[in-house]
Amino acid sequence: MKVYLNGTFLEHAEAKVSVADRGFVFGDGVYEVTRVVNGSFFREQDHLNRLDDGLAELQIRLAPEVRKIIPEIARELLKQNNLLEGEAAVYLQITRGAVWPRTHTFPDPPAEPTVYLSASPFTPHKKLHETGVDTIKVPDVRWARCNIKTVNLLPNTLAKQRAQDEGVNSAIMIRDGVVTESPNANIFGVKNGTLCTYPESNYILSGITRKSVIEIARKLNIGLEFKPISEHKLYDLDELFFSGTTTDIQPINRVDGKPIGTGKPGPVVKTIQNEYRKMLYKTDAKPKKAV
Amino acid sequence: MKVYLNGTFLEHAEAKVSVADRGFVFGDGVYEVTRVVNGSFFREQDHLNRLDDGLAELQIRLAPEVRKIIPEIARELLKQNNLLEGEAAVYLQITRGAVWPRTHTFPDPPAEPTVYLSASPFTPHKKLHETGVDTIKVPDVRWARCNIKTVNLLPNTLAKQRAQDEGVNSAIMIRDGVVTESPNANIFGVKNGTLCTYPESNYILSGITRKSVIEIARKLNIGLEFKPISEHKLYDLDELFFSGTTTDIQPINRVDGKPIGTGKPGPVVKTIQNEYRKMLYKTDAKPKKAV
Repeated sequence: MKVYLNGTFLEHAEAKVSVADRGFVFGDGVYEVTRVVNGSFFREQDHLNRLDDGLAELQIRLAPEVRKIIPEIARELLKQNNLLEGEAAVYLQITRGAVWPRTHTFPDPPAEPTVYLSASPFTPHKKLHETGVDTIKVPDVRWARCNIKTVNLLPNTLAKQRAQDEGVNSAIMIRDGVVTESPNANIFGVKNGTLCTYPESNYILSGITRKSVIEIARKLNIGLEFKPISEHKLYDLDELFFSGTTTDIQPINRVDGKPIGTGKPGPVVKTIQNEYRKMLYKTDAKPKKAV
Repeated sequence: MKVYLNGTFLEHAEAKVSVADRGFVFGDGVYEVTRVVNGSFFREQDHLNRLDDGLAELQIRLAPEVRKIIPEIARELLKQNNLLEGEAAVYLQITRGAVWPRTHTFPDPPAEPTVYLSASPFTPHKKLHETGVDTIKVPDVRWARCNIKTVNLLPNTLAKQRAQDEGVNSAIMIRDGVVTESPNANIFGVKNGTLCTYPESNYILSGITRKSVIEIARKLNIGLEFKPISEHKLYDLDELFFSGTTTDIQPINRVDGKPIGTGKPGPVVKTIQNEYRKMLYKTDAKPKKAV
């Protein structure tokens, strides 16, 4: 696969960053993953807005002329990888750049930020979307600025690995007695036909798919409460599901071996899956072929 | 400067890691910084033990034959950089390696870990050790596994930068109403001749210099309590200081503009500085020349 790195398109095996890159030594950078269907980017502007927010939070000053051409780079990358038909995912990472010697404080004058994009074919987890998945609870040990989509992702990888080690699909992270997120998705509960999810705050990432779910709920007059789900009320819920860019809308059957509701995907999540599919596969940019 | 990367000594500007390195995309790695005086490593075994603990925590399986030669690589690096005389610092970072495509779960089979070492001349902050420094309080927003010395260091860099922006040397991080650490050092308070510091736990890194201070206190019969310093009792302390590998023993004069004790380095920190200098500059390995 071809990737883009700091102005050049090259084979991924050839794409290398300095050992002094602050992404490598501090995790000092942000990233985005965007879905693409037949060359059309899904909610691209939302991803770019979140990217801009993250860069501003970290005070990474990307040159405006570079920021401006990111959508163009992403399209060229799809083209070079023959990904303009079918489904794909584009990964974008921007770090504060390479600085020698290593110091915690930001480089002054600033370094040239590192800009890295890759594109891969993407296969949605259709089977899991139908069957639902099992999960475990794990402590949410992440930092207190989860609203910034940074590459400080070690706690997320450890939680995901722990879930895999325990033979389940993913983890439900618990902070201060309430459900926050999975390692790579937001979480919604359903009780008596009403959705609830953790409110926007520094303890969750404000997901683009979460935003789609909220829009769907409003469109379909499904009740929606922004409040955390208590750990001890998890099993009182009728349904529970993940929302995420690569996760899509993923029903959860069990947590720590115990069923949520019937232990099978329920009517509300199926309705939302259906609407979400319509959004994803009929983007404004008009897909070239039906999926 | 020459660095070491995965089996090769090369110029630092030439040393590059894959964009797929999990250090770059997840901050999935650990590091150590060790002081060297005239070619003698200070408390090297403590650093290596902590490295082993971190690798075990993250389940990064470094080949025993590679792990074994790390001290040898560090010495060769000093030699190649003409750092066998005077003071130096050796940086070591090990990540889970480069894995394509990117997935949160650990690669199976495991990837070859990335091993990176650099060495630089080091100048202790002697002037600041004499004068003391000013600091600010900032919220400790780090994750809940601060005991692992990982490269997920974004909160540390942000706190250090904020201190610099406010015109002071460093920050005192507050979690749940108590002092934990600085972005790159442990913290000790002194009250009525007794030291106190945050107990070993998942909320602080167990510093090697912290260990030296504890040994010094025991040797000199200085009282020592392992309990957190309450934020609201900070200004009741007689003295306050940082301990760290590159910080050494650093007196703190002020926090948020208000003096600690007399607002100048006190007798206890001076005594500890003196003993610490003896430890650092008269290591077991016998320095080649006096410093």
